[in-house]
Amino acid sequence: MSIVQVDLGRRSYPIHIGEQLLGRPELVAPHLAGRQVLVITDDQVAPLYLKQALATFSDYETEQLILPAGEAQKTLENLNRIFDRLLARRFGRDATLVALGGGVIGDMVGFAAACYQRGVGFIQMPTTLLAQVDSSVGGKTAVNHPLGKNMIGAFHQPRCVIADTKTLQSLDTRQLRAGCAEVIKYGLISDVDFFVWLEAHLEAVLGLEPQATAEAVRRSCENKAAVVSADEHERGQRALLNLGHTFGHAIETGLGYGRWLHGEAVAAGMVMAAQMSARIGMLPDREAARVQELLERAKLPTKLPPELNVESMLGHMSVDKKVLGGKLRLVLLKAIGRAVLSEDFDPEILRNTLEAG
Amino acid sequence: MSIVQVDLGRRSYPIHIGEQLLGRPELVAPHLAGRQVLVITDDQVAPLYLKQALATFSDYETEQLILPAGEAQKTLENLNRIFDRLLARRFGRDATLVALGGGVIGDMVGFAAACYQRGVGFIQMPTTLLAQVDSSVGGKTAVNHPLGKNMIGAFHQPRCVIADTKTLQSLDTRQLRAGCAEVIKYGLISDVDFFVWLEAHLEAVLGLEPQATAEAVRRSCENKAAVVSADEHERGQRALLNLGHTFGHAIETGLGYGRWLHGEAVAAGMVMAAQMSARIGMLPDREAARVQELLERAKLPTKLPPELNVESMLGHMSVDKKVLGGKLRLVLLKAIGRAVLSEDFDPEILRNTLEAG
Repeated sequence: MSIVQVDLGRRSYPIHIGEQLLGRPELVAPHLAGRQVLVITDDQVAPLYLKQALATFSDYETEQLILPAGEAQKTLENLNRIFDRLLARRFGRDATLVALGGGVIGDMVGFAAACYQRGVGFIQMPTTLLAQVDSSVGGKTAVNHPLGKNMIGAFHQPRCVIADTKTLQSLDTRQLRAGCAEVIKYGLISDVDFFVWLEAHLEAVLGLEPQATAEAVRRSCENKAAVVSADEHERGQRALLNLGHTFGHAIETGLGYGRWLHGEAVAAGMVMAAQMSARIGMLPDREAARVQELLERAKLPTKLPPELNVESMLGHMSVDKKVLGGKLRLVLLKAIGRAVLSEDFDPEILRNTLEAG
Repeated sequence: MSIVQVDLGRRSYPIHIGEQLLGRPELVAPHLAGRQVLVITDDQVAPLYLKQALATFSDYETEQLILPAGEAQKTLENLNRIFDRLLARRFGRDATLVALGGGVIGDMVGFAAACYQRGVGFIQMPTTLLAQVDSSVGGKTAVNHPLGKNMIGAFHQPRCVIADTKTLQSLDTRQLRAGCAEVIKYGLISDVDFFVWLEAHLEAVLGLEPQATAEAVRRSCENKAAVVSADEHERGQRALLNLGHTFGHAIETGLGYGRWLHGEAVAAGMVMAAQMSARIGMLPDREAARVQELLERAKLPTKLPPELNVESMLGHMSVDKKVLGGKLRLVLLKAIGRAVLSEDFDPEILRNTLEAG
């Protein structure tokens, strides 16, 4: 087991990474304020891991809540189901919520914890690669709105993260590949060595070889923790983590949530960002090609879905939450391992990139 | 005009108090991050003050949203109507929400601002005495849940508060008296001089004599600001602001919300707290009588409503205890101007107090 620490002063917390960490009470005990624990998961994860997760809290007053799975379920309505249960069972301010599942469960449970009685503790138990390397770390929580993803949320850090890499074995290949998009993202943003390592070990990671998997999760978490520690509330550098996401969110919104997985949309978005960077002359064409090649090896989409035309992409991108005062801000690449925020690009280059994509 | 500063480091903000402050752009201009402003109010306040409030932001891109009035409207559903509007109009992260109205609008708009895109700025323009002296200051925001008041919310400080005392002239007498209960509360908790001042000037405040009103609002805000600055997230001393509220909530719940105004229930609750303190021997009888006398002069209730017997009060107070977790904790008085938190009191004394009340 390895531990990555997220340094945030009083809100610091550990990410435990390794095999068979569910069911180990000693990892969570220091992070529970009171005796009441509500474990929330979805109907796909529950049959696989709920029993193990509950065993982690066998010394506590434990409740469980199983929500329907899927991005389309990340709604205010399901959030309210969590509140209903907490209040029906009279959970107090020292209660702890536990998010067992992927990014959807993690984001929604985290937001419920942020709001319930103006804030209670929560623990992330991510069971997908995407959640282990990205969404469970850093305290971004949210639900979707019909007009935009993650539009309603809060910054609320977990008390700890338990990333049991054994749970990745139940992921279907498509989910695993989608998670890999976010792993590759960290190499692109700030860690060229990791990108090179991934070029050498991609198949080992996708094959879930234990050491390669743990290494990929650990280095992803280290990269994310460093960014989050420096800029918790995304006033600056944290926005770099959105590489590929403005394009990606537009794809997800345009297709309707759930058609493409988040990581798939981000993969195509990162290729768009790399190609746009190359068009601007900021990134050598060869490097943009390397980005595309690695994502193709992971069998991730690297082009826009044919259903979406340029106009609908531009429309969805303009409502994205990274629009500041009407200006669209994109994360572009100066090199592999060096992402930058850009506001003043020629809109024609964006249009040309989308047309070519 | 006077200014009370709430000191919270980077989240510090001014409360402007005085007549005819609505419509003065220079007071809000330093606190607006971007150009988009959504002014939210209710259908009772809109005909009276919306035009003036909008004039304050005449140099900005202003939208308005009018919600139905009343505590029963402080729901997730109405919160979502705010999000609908923000997203339909593509409001960005630098947008500002403005809460024009009483505590219901302030709490709901503040919570919307806390959650929209994980936090945007907001400005409080309180138009009731209760909101000017209490709910608009300190950053507690929330909506209600059918199983409990203010159960879903956040701590989110406004960028500034504009307390235009002229707006109090449209309050009906009952609302004004109810707001006065919270004014008297500050004297009881931490400011004996203010209590003595109120004994001398109560009728001037209730008569809305401009100087007396401004003074009452200013000193209330100063007291609240001091408590909030010391304990923003209610980890300790801020709980003193709940003087009279545990009794009061039990009255409100027992009668059904809306029968008594919040301030009315708090008034009777403060008398209970004073009488219980006297029974314990913590507060001289003469001081408890002074508390009751001042509230009687304000024509506020000082006894339990006859519909509620001791058992139902104890039931609602203990339900409250379970909902909030832990032990029943009451705010009692060691002196006028010196409130204390107490958990270890003899339950018989609580019962005797309720029987006598």
